[in-house]
Amino acid sequence: MPRPSQPILSRELICRTALNLLDRTGRFTVPEVAQKLGVSVSSLYHHVAGRAQIVEGIRGLLAGRFAPIAGDTPWPEAVAAWARSYRDAFAAHPAAIPPLVAQTITDPVTLRQYGALAGVLARSGFGPDSIVLAITMLDNLCLGAALDVGAPSVIWDDNPAIDSPMQTALGRATLGADRAERGFELGLALTLRGLAELLADQPAEVG
Amino acid sequence: MPRPSQPILSRELICRTALNLLDRTGRFTVPEVAQKLGVSVSSLYHHVAGRAQIVEGIRGLLAGRFAPIAGDTPWPEAVAAWARSYRDAFAAHPAAIPPLVAQTITDPVTLRQYGALAGVLARSGFGPDSIVLAITMLDNLCLGAALDVGAPSVIWDDNPAIDSPMQTALGRATLGADRAERGFELGLALTLRGLAELLADQPAEVG
Repeated sequence: MPRPSQPILSRELICRTALNLLDRTGRFTVPEVAQKLGVSVSSLYHHVAGRAQIVEGIRGLLAGRFAPIAGDTPWPEAVAAWARSYRDAFAAHPAAIPPLVAQTITDPVTLRQYGALAGVLARSGFGPDSIVLAITMLDNLCLGAALDVGAPSVIWDDNPAIDSPMQTALGRATLGADRAERGFELGLALTLRGLAELLADQPAEVG
Repeated sequence: MPRPSQPILSRELICRTALNLLDRTGRFTVPEVAQKLGVSVSSLYHHVAGRAQIVEGIRGLLAGRFAPIAGDTPWPEAVAAWARSYRDAFAAHPAAIPPLVAQTITDPVTLRQYGALAGVLARSGFGPDSIVLAITMLDNLCLGAALDVGAPSVIWDDNPAIDSPMQTALGRATLGADRAERGFELGLALTLRGLAELLADQPAEVG
């Protein structure tokens, strides 16, 4: 008789389990991950060096869902596709955002993603400061919008006893369920235009 | 002899304790708050109806630090001051962001803040859809930038073995410690200009 199937402990299984705990409870600890997998903490440490490495593994799971950046795509298209996929990947796991942002990125999949993005920008003529500002603005936009996707459909209490210009605007607005999507796309369009202006202001490259 | 001073249990003390737990551990539960305060869970329930009401109290603590919106300030100045104070208030408590965003806003201090902001925009000629889009974009920008403030000074691992356009840009950029501030301010400026364009496109109001 075959033994009951038991998933083989691996770095990926540990990271998926930790992400699942984050999704459900808002945090994870190494002992909680071990308990969830029915193994000892020391067994986990055969696969990961500690909590920080699990966080990096979670980052890699999410970055694996980002749109790949082809080197020959015009930069505005490459940036827009990357940003949309970034927002979507993090929107599915909002509780993972604070621990991920609080830690230096060492995950190689994620570093390659940022490297490819910086490469497209550099080849298009963006200078170092503009590349760093572009990536900062895109990170802010995508993480903020990812949180917004998970917000309840009624964000502001619509108690009719509260009479305010906000309630009036919400009552009359026609955006409906498209609010988050329209807000993200408008923010993305404004960011892309701002980046095009930074590019136009770059000093001509010394041949 | 006076009794040792003991803080009197109150809704505010409960919410401050929960926020402190969030800051330190990334989450809070009602039993953890009770334990921290040295009281029973049922004692807490004399002051708050449950976890959701504690989250709203935390929202009120943060919204109390937002810049007040004076009705006669020109809208771009009012929006900019509000956005900067919003980012700063949340930057001090990044772990609170996911639970706050996941819940309908019922805290009256926060609702008054959004009401005042919507009021300034409405009096300046913004229509309902534009007001809702404006607030969505500002929420995304401020929450994303608040997370960025708490990021480590080295965000991307600068392992010299990794040779990528990202590392090249980071090595040559001159932004230094101003990266997060410059990125936020540029995002804010682009958002304000986009909002001015939305305003210019509003249909003339029917007298």
